[in-house]
Amino acid sequence: MSEQKLPTRAEDFSEWYNQLVLRSEMADYAPVRGCMIVRPYGWALWENITAALDRRFKATGHVNAAFPLLIPRSFIDKEKSHVAGFSPELAVVTHGGGEELAEPLVIRPTSETIIGHAYAKWIQSYRDLPVLINQWNSVVRWELRTKLFLRTLEFFWQEGHTAHATLAEAEAETRQMLDIYTDFAVNEAAVPVIPGRKSLSERFAGADQTFSIEAMMGDKKALQSATSHNLGQNFAKAFEIRYLDKEGQLQHCWTTSWGLSTRFVGAIIMVHGDDQGLIFPPRLAPHQIVIVPIFKNDEEKAQVTEATHAVRAELSAAGLRVTLDERDGVTPGFKFNDWEMRGVPLRIEIGPKDVAKNSVALARRDRPGREGKSFVPREGLVAVVRETLDGIQKALHDRALEFRKANTHDPKNYDEFRNAVENGFAFSFWCGNPDCEARVKEETKATIRNIPLEQPGGAGPCIACGQPSQERALFGRAY
Amino acid sequence: MSEQKLPTRAEDFSEWYNQLVLRSEMADYAPVRGCMIVRPYGWALWENITAALDRRFKATGHVNAAFPLLIPRSFIDKEKSHVAGFSPELAVVTHGGGEELAEPLVIRPTSETIIGHAYAKWIQSYRDLPVLINQWNSVVRWELRTKLFLRTLEFFWQEGHTAHATLAEAEAETRQMLDIYTDFAVNEAAVPVIPGRKSLSERFAGADQTFSIEAMMGDKKALQSATSHNLGQNFAKAFEIRYLDKEGQLQHCWTTSWGLSTRFVGAIIMVHGDDQGLIFPPRLAPHQIVIVPIFKNDEEKAQVTEATHAVRAELSAAGLRVTLDERDGVTPGFKFNDWEMRGVPLRIEIGPKDVAKNSVALARRDRPGREGKSFVPREGLVAVVRETLDGIQKALHDRALEFRKANTHDPKNYDEFRNAVENGFAFSFWCGNPDCEARVKEETKATIRNIPLEQPGGAGPCIACGQPSQERALFGRAY
Repeated sequence: MSEQKLPTRAEDFSEWYNQLVLRSEMADYAPVRGCMIVRPYGWALWENITAALDRRFKATGHVNAAFPLLIPRSFIDKEKSHVAGFSPELAVVTHGGGEELAEPLVIRPTSETIIGHAYAKWIQSYRDLPVLINQWNSVVRWELRTKLFLRTLEFFWQEGHTAHATLAEAEAETRQMLDIYTDFAVNEAAVPVIPGRKSLSERFAGADQTFSIEAMMGDKKALQSATSHNLGQNFAKAFEIRYLDKEGQLQHCWTTSWGLSTRFVGAIIMVHGDDQGLIFPPRLAPHQIVIVPIFKNDEEKAQVTEATHAVRAELSAAGLRVTLDERDGVTPGFKFNDWEMRGVPLRIEIGPKDVAKNSVALARRDRPGREGKSFVPREGLVAVVRETLDGIQKALHDRALEFRKANTHDPKNYDEFRNAVENGFAFSFWCGNPDCEARVKEETKATIRNIPLEQPGGAGPCIACGQPSQERALFGRAY
Repeated sequence: MSEQKLPTRAEDFSEWYNQLVLRSEMADYAPVRGCMIVRPYGWALWENITAALDRRFKATGHVNAAFPLLIPRSFIDKEKSHVAGFSPELAVVTHGGGEELAEPLVIRPTSETIIGHAYAKWIQSYRDLPVLINQWNSVVRWELRTKLFLRTLEFFWQEGHTAHATLAEAEAETRQMLDIYTDFAVNEAAVPVIPGRKSLSERFAGADQTFSIEAMMGDKKALQSATSHNLGQNFAKAFEIRYLDKEGQLQHCWTTSWGLSTRFVGAIIMVHGDDQGLIFPPRLAPHQIVIVPIFKNDEEKAQVTEATHAVRAELSAAGLRVTLDERDGVTPGFKFNDWEMRGVPLRIEIGPKDVAKNSVALARRDRPGREGKSFVPREGLVAVVRETLDGIQKALHDRALEFRKANTHDPKNYDEFRNAVENGFAFSFWCGNPDCEARVKEETKATIRNIPLEQPGGAGPCIACGQPSQERALFGRAY
C-alpha cells in the first residue's frame, strides 16, 4: 500500500524481493526467527499451486494421507545417510504435558522415516503394491540463513512417498513425478525449467538418485524448484518394508519420494517480477483480473458502478477469478500502481466514456504503458479476456525462456567459465569427478545444478580438469 | 480386509469403533503415543469435509492463510484464561539445530496468540477491518486419554480467526459460523446437531462466549462437533490489536475464533455406522458408488467387464465418485461385505444376466438385504443413481434425528434425570448456577453440552436445585 518505490532489480535484487514480498502482503516474518506467515494473498497463490499439482497427482493414481508431525528421535538414526543429512537441522521436543519425555521427539524435517515405519506395517504382499501416497503439510528444518519463501525454518510443501515391487517401477515413478513437476512449472507457472539428475554431492540424504528441475531467476541465479528421489532399498532396509512376492519370497520394496514446496512461490516472484512488482501467470494468479472504476461525480459513479458490477458478474460466471477495487479515498492511479505491484495479470478500466461506448479498457501487466493497452467492446468480452490471459501466460513463459537462453553460456575454457557463472548458467562438459565439482564450487561459488536429461550429445573436455567427458552439467550459482 | 466379524455396537461400542477405524483403513496408530496416521481412505473423507466447509467460508468472505506452528512460550502466558487452559497440554521445543534455545517454543495448541500478534501489526485503521482469516492445519495438545479421530495429541482442523470494529459484528460473526457448522453438519454430513451456547465452565479458555453444535452418537453419548467463540476484547487487549476509528480514536478490536476438526470424522462414524461397519453420507463419501462385477468364466468376464467399464465411465462423467472393484482372487460376496464395512452408500452389481437384460442391480448400504435392493435399466442410470444417493442422504439424516429424539428425555425429577442421562440426553431446566452443574457432573457424569438456541419457552424448576429457571440445558455424557 505504500507509495514508496521499490528498489529496482538492478539496484538490489535481494532487497527488491524482500520488500516486494512484504509490500504485496504475500508473506510476513513470524515472531520466531526464520519462520514465516503466509498471508492470504500468498496463500491464495499456493492454493492454486496445490490444486494444479494435486490434480496431476490424482490423475496418476496417487492418494493423499496425513502422517504425524512428531517423530521419535531414534527413527532419524535408522538410515545412515539420512541421519547425517538431517541431524544438524532438527527441532527437538523434550517436554510434553508438563513432563520431560522419556524419548525426545523431533518435528518432521521430512517424513521418509515415519512413513517407512507405517509402510512396513501395511505392506505384506505384492498385492499391496504399489503404494502411492502424497501428503500436503509443513516441515521444520533449523536453517541459519533464511529468506521468505526461499528458505524458512518451517515451510509448506507436498511430499510424495511411494513403494514398489521392483527397481524399474521405482525408477519410472521417480521420472514420472519429475515430468509432472516439469509440466506444472512450464504450463501452469510459465516457469521454464531444466529437468536433470543431481550429482552425488547434491543428492537427498538417503537417496540412490535425485532428480530436480532448475529454473533461472531474474538475477540469473538458479533455484532448485522441485526434487524427485529414487530411494532404492535404503529406507526399505532401514525400516523393513518387505513384501511376499508371487513365489512366496520375502523381498524388500523399492521406494521413492518427491516434493515441491512454497519455495516455488519464490520462483514465480523472481522469474516473472519486474521493477513495478509482481507479475503472476494467469493460470495461478489469485486474481486474474482487477476491475478499476473511474468516475468524477455521483452521476458518473452510478453509471460506472452498474457497468463494473455487470462485468464482474459476467467474468465471474465464466469461471474467471476477478476482483473489483471499489476502495474509497484512493485514486484510480493509486489503484493501478497497487495492483501492478501485486501482479494481477490483467486490468479492466471502466469510466463514463467506456460506459457510453459500451466498451472497456484492458491493460496487460506484462506490457507496461500504452503498448499493453487496448479498448474492446463489452460484447464478447469474456472471449477476449480469455484470449488475452492465454497470451499473457505464453508471453511470460517465452520471455523467461529467452532470458534463460540468453544467459546460458558455453564457455571455451575455465577462464571463460568463471566469467560465465557470474552472469548466468554454464552448460559445460564435466568428467563426473567430485573433485572437479568441489574445485569449481570453491573457486566460483557455482554448483552443478543438475546433469540435464536433454544432452546435445558429443564429447568434450571437462571444464575443470580437461579430461574427456561424455555429459554436460548445468553450473550456476544457486539460492 | 479381515473376514473376522466386528463386535456389535450393543456388545461393545468402543471396541466396535476402534476396530472399525483400523479395519476400514481410515486411520492407524502412530509410533508416538496418542498420535494418529490418517490413512488415504480417512483423508479422502476429510478432504470432502474440508471442501464443503471451505466453500462456505469463502462464500462468506473468508480467506485462508498459514501461520507458523512454532509459538514463543511467552505468548501463551499473555492471556490469563488461555494460559490456565492450555499450559498443561503443551508440547515444548527446547532445542533447535543442535543447540538449546534461549526461549522455549511450543507447538501451537491453537493459534489465537500468534495470530493476535500478527493482527496487532497488520491492523491500523477501521479501513483494515474486518479481518476474516481461516487456516487449515494441525495442532498439538498433550492429551492423556486418546482415541482415533476423537482425541489425539495432534489433530487436523480449521481455525478461523477474525477481528472486528464492534462487539455486535463479532457477535454476528460468531453466530454466522455456528450457522455454517450447523448447515454443514445437517446438509453435508447428515448429522443432526443442536446449536447452543456453552455454560461458563465449558467455555474456551479466553472466550467471553462459546457456542457449539452437539450431536448424539450411536451409543447415546454426546459429541461436541464444532465450536465458535466470541473472544470479546480479551486477546485484543493481551496483544494490543487496535485500530483508529473514524473519529481518530484508538480502539481495541473485537475478535472471534471457530473450529471444526477431524473429530467430526468420529461423529460421522458413530452417528451413521451399523453392526456391518461404516455408512458414509453420499455427499461426503470418498466413493459414492462401488461397482462389483460378477462372472463365472472368461466369456462372462468379457461381457461383464465391458458393462462395468461403461457404467463407471458414465457415472464418473456425470461427476459421481465411483470405484470399480476388479480384484482377483476374492469372491463377489467378500467384496460386498468389504465395501459394506467401508461404508460405500451404494453398490452396483453387474453379472451376465444384467448384461443380457441391459440392467444393473442396486444395493443401498443403509437398508440391508433385499429391502435395499432394486433392479434398474441401464438407460437413465445416472438419474436413478443420483436420486438414490439423495434418498440415502435424507434417510441417514432422518434416522439419526429420530434416534436422537427418541433418546432425548424430559425427566420430571432428579431421579428420572439420573436415569435419563444414562440413556441419552436430558433437556431440562437449569437455574444457571455452576454449583448445580458441578453437582450433576459429579453425581451422573453428565455435563451441560450446551444451552440450545432453540428453547421451547416457559419456565420450570432447575433439575438439580428446584429453583425457578427460564432456560433448558442439554445434559448428556460426552466424548
